[in-house]
Amino acid sequence: MTAKLAEALAGIVGPEHVSVEPGALAAHARDATPLFDAMPQAVVHPGSAEEVAAILRYATAEGVPVVPRGAGSNLCAGTVPLHGGIVLVLTRLNRILEVSRDELLARVQTGVPTAKLAAAAAEAGLLYAPDPGSHTVSTVGGNVATCAGGLRGLKYGVTRNYVLGLEAVLPTGEIIRTGGRLWKDVAGYDLTRLLTGSEGTLAVITEATVALLPKPETTGTGVAYFPTLADASRAVTAVIASGIVPATLEFLDQKCIAAVEEFAGLGLRADAGALLLFGDDGQAATVEGNLARIEGICADEGALEVTLAEDVARADALLAARRCSLPALSRLGSLTVLEDVSVPRHRLAGMVARIDEIAAAHDLLIATFGHAGDGNLHPTCVLDPDDGEAIERCHQAFAEIFSAAIALDGTITGEHGVGAAKLPYLEERLGGDQVALLGRIKRAFDPAGILNPGKLGS
Amino acid sequence: MTAKLAEALAGIVGPEHVSVEPGALAAHARDATPLFDAMPQAVVHPGSAEEVAAILRYATAEGVPVVPRGAGSNLCAGTVPLHGGIVLVLTRLNRILEVSRDELLARVQTGVPTAKLAAAAAEAGLLYAPDPGSHTVSTVGGNVATCAGGLRGLKYGVTRNYVLGLEAVLPTGEIIRTGGRLWKDVAGYDLTRLLTGSEGTLAVITEATVALLPKPETTGTGVAYFPTLADASRAVTAVIASGIVPATLEFLDQKCIAAVEEFAGLGLRADAGALLLFGDDGQAATVEGNLARIEGICADEGALEVTLAEDVARADALLAARRCSLPALSRLGSLTVLEDVSVPRHRLAGMVARIDEIAAAHDLLIATFGHAGDGNLHPTCVLDPDDGEAIERCHQAFAEIFSAAIALDGTITGEHGVGAAKLPYLEERLGGDQVALLGRIKRAFDPAGILNPGKLGS
Repeated sequence: MTAKLAEALAGIVGPEHVSVEPGALAAHARDATPLFDAMPQAVVHPGSAEEVAAILRYATAEGVPVVPRGAGSNLCAGTVPLHGGIVLVLTRLNRILEVSRDELLARVQTGVPTAKLAAAAAEAGLLYAPDPGSHTVSTVGGNVATCAGGLRGLKYGVTRNYVLGLEAVLPTGEIIRTGGRLWKDVAGYDLTRLLTGSEGTLAVITEATVALLPKPETTGTGVAYFPTLADASRAVTAVIASGIVPATLEFLDQKCIAAVEEFAGLGLRADAGALLLFGDDGQAATVEGNLARIEGICADEGALEVTLAEDVARADALLAARRCSLPALSRLGSLTVLEDVSVPRHRLAGMVARIDEIAAAHDLLIATFGHAGDGNLHPTCVLDPDDGEAIERCHQAFAEIFSAAIALDGTITGEHGVGAAKLPYLEERLGGDQVALLGRIKRAFDPAGILNPGKLGS
Repeated sequence: MTAKLAEALAGIVGPEHVSVEPGALAAHARDATPLFDAMPQAVVHPGSAEEVAAILRYATAEGVPVVPRGAGSNLCAGTVPLHGGIVLVLTRLNRILEVSRDELLARVQTGVPTAKLAAAAAEAGLLYAPDPGSHTVSTVGGNVATCAGGLRGLKYGVTRNYVLGLEAVLPTGEIIRTGGRLWKDVAGYDLTRLLTGSEGTLAVITEATVALLPKPETTGTGVAYFPTLADASRAVTAVIASGIVPATLEFLDQKCIAAVEEFAGLGLRADAGALLLFGDDGQAATVEGNLARIEGICADEGALEVTLAEDVARADALLAARRCSLPALSRLGSLTVLEDVSVPRHRLAGMVARIDEIAAAHDLLIATFGHAGDGNLHPTCVLDPDDGEAIERCHQAFAEIFSAAIALDGTITGEHGVGAAKLPYLEERLGGDQVALLGRIKRAFDPAGILNPGKLGS
């Protein structure tokens, strides 16, 4: 079976781009999600949309599962080949096809790393706004497939807001082009947005046209420490109510502050109950004015201390504090389960309080950081991987956390995706009628059910 | 048949909300699109999502077409009941359920007029950014169903960018809720965006949660006259390339300027080949700086004259000039066919040149105005409704205009929708494989094919 499959794939992409070696298969049995793995039968690296189409036609004809994958930095087991078959790695599609300053857009193959697109845009004096936490490793295709978010979601939106058009290959082998170079285009159902966030279950995305913005003139950053997360959350609400929508409003809870300070020694104030990192970008006078107002609001809401970064180096250090939350926490135990719930912004503190209660009830260390501006939290459980009983408690705790988020008008995933990890909770969020509809949409694209089975739409 | 239908509907919504009178049927046989009409069998005004669900269950069981409709201001025959059946008018669902300043959102029933939502937001110090040309009559539901655009598309995006969540009734009667009060939510396929722009062919949208923005501190407006539209288009490209994304960048061609001046006597300069209306909003210093830079760029690109509106009254007069383009043109003949193509921004002048060539070749008066910032043009043909031969030439001319737009990487509709009027051209834009996929998606929602037949997905 494997030999026949390898031969068929080699006939399409050339033998040098197919691997059935146990080491290569094992490397593609998992992504960045702990506790999920499954061996594929073959790993293939196509070099064009046409090759992807030929692979998918073969897979549909033979009933072989295909799991598309970029960098494999997925955090919800969205690229784990649960049912075996082919892992289709898109990293050879790594060309930036154009960056247009006149049109404020870029066209890239989807295997391009996000950071490479961002750098190419910056070189043209432009900004690619989406900046998921994994942007140094993730690919544009993975970002589109998961509708990746990031640190600038409130002001700038998420990946969805920047995708203008896609080239995608249907599981039955047709290559379609959706949208294009246009800011307004309503010809047909919005397949561009339907494919964005479809987690590799409807089509394989091979090219994306994305909107860019003029690069903001300046950026400013500040940090505020609060006695409790409730104080920080109140400050966030007050900032928004004052008419400011800042580019960055990130928080760390007390456990994260301690871990980050221990890890990176950035001089964070470890006695605080919460840290709020705020930033804005735009014209210098506006940024200066907004940061001063945020500083004042934080003080009014009981901040222990508020500091504006005096220079870019200090601002970068503060952003590094937020970005290194996960590695810092990872050091506390060798198994780190990072989750991703989202609630209405003003319910942030209530949600963290529920997370803390649930963690205590299950005797677990769960620290929480995330995007205060858009209510997107990353509760992170640190564990001993050999403690099966603790892992069981962790699963139970996260099931309760998902329910708690839903009860607060929230959702089970803000930006990571559903994947395999959260599929069991999807019906609680969407209801049975909507989940059934997702299945019918899935079958409209993928009648043979070969594309990323066991995930969305299954 | 009609009696049975009326009785069934009356049983659901009460007899006072069902009409089968010839006058009422005739009033719902057409929308704002000329040259399309078809009589329904009944007009029904449901008062709740549950009543909508009961109507749709009945329609699916009996195979009766249902055409959802808000204000009927559609411009592509999207709400004309081509196959008869029921016109489902949603204007009784006219409650604004909440406007939240803390959460920057509003939740409304979909029969609420767009202008009423905008006014409620303004009262709370907030901005509902989408502002389609028909906003004084159109409903939020119609805006969502068509993904309506408007004058602020470049800086602020279109309706899609503001829809956070929907309540919708499937043709088979299930009531689903998509998205919610969240800026980040990737649980499931993006049904919120799939329904946005689905033109009443997939589900009936009964409630929408929309994002609001803090109201900009100030607004400024200016006008520039150019010898030719090519000069104006070059200025638009230069503005964008300079790093400014202004809130408004509208244009009128020479024929529109003349018609508007004749109609409204606003003191427009009738010797110019093109008028560019520009505006921005935000903090006062930023707006002032941006308008001054745009003024300078227009002068550099050969403007005959550039004026900044010295006060709000003058700015409103200028905006009125743009907004009255359609009524002004309508006076030139009693039949006005308003179209809606979109091209990459820098191809605006090329597209207008093609439109002018095509109009001349067919001996037609086609004037063009539109959104220069996002490349969305509204070529408008003015005709004598009794001149069947001219109407035939008009159809032929628009078919050529759609082909020309596609050839310039553009699309057949930027913001009005496909409806019945442009369905014949959809395959030229999307290709046969994509049109077939739309049909499969349609059937995943509407197995009996009762919802707005003869439109998207048919």
